[in-house]
Amino acid sequence: MTGRLELPDFKLETYFSTWEFTARHHLTASDAESMTVAELLALGTDEDHEAYENLHLGYTPTWGTEPLRAAIAGSYESLTSSKVLGFAGAGEALFWAMQLFVEPGEHVIVNVPNYQSI
Amino acid sequence: MTGRLELPDFKLETYFSTWEFTARHHLTASDAESMTVAELLALGTDEDHEAYENLHLGYTPTWGTEPLRAAIAGSYESLTSSKVLGFAGAGEALFWAMQLFVEPGEHVIVNVPNYQSI
Repeated sequence: MTGRLELPDFKLETYFSTWEFTARHHLTASDAESMTVAELLALGTDEDHEAYENLHLGYTPTWGTEPLRAAIAGSYESLTSSKVLGFAGAGEALFWAMQLFVEPGEHVIVNVPNYQSI
Repeated sequence: MTGRLELPDFKLETYFSTWEFTARHHLTASDAESMTVAELLALGTDEDHEAYENLHLGYTPTWGTEPLRAAIAGSYESLTSSKVLGFAGAGEALFWAMQLFVEPGEHVIVNVPNYQSI
């Protein structure tokens, strides 16, 4: 790297870049077992499929689409969509949560091993 | 905001958050006109559709999937996929391009108005 910004390695990402798709058995995954597009679509109703096919592949509002925010809010008992903010991945959300909720010198308890970006 | 990190507003994003989906006519778009999922799928072959339906919705290698990198490389005359690195959006790619290719004090010429992150 010839630039001036010398960021430390994101060690978890470096580790995964080597082993995630080469190890015979992967016992370190933090995500649930996923599925294929076909398997996911098979879970939907005809109405879901129609909404999916008509989905416009353009930019969305900064804070996420209204249907997404409403769906997330609906999974809580007392939350409205106006209180839901979408992020581009967990890392971005963790970054801002730490910036907003934690002051320098405060004590933070986290599980280890954990997702390194926190 | 109660945290210590005081980033300046990303003015373009602030502007879009107000106007992108409320203005009657949008003459400031920098992206090409997009399409719906159904319109996109209609462009594909049977083989494309099968590959899409069998696509596993899990994590990918850090630098992008091999088919993506091969497709990008294939759009150039003399590029192999090992030279292609995927990013999560243009902003991330612009950031690293500037970090790697430009030294402090160097002269950079850009079009204005442009995408603010550059």
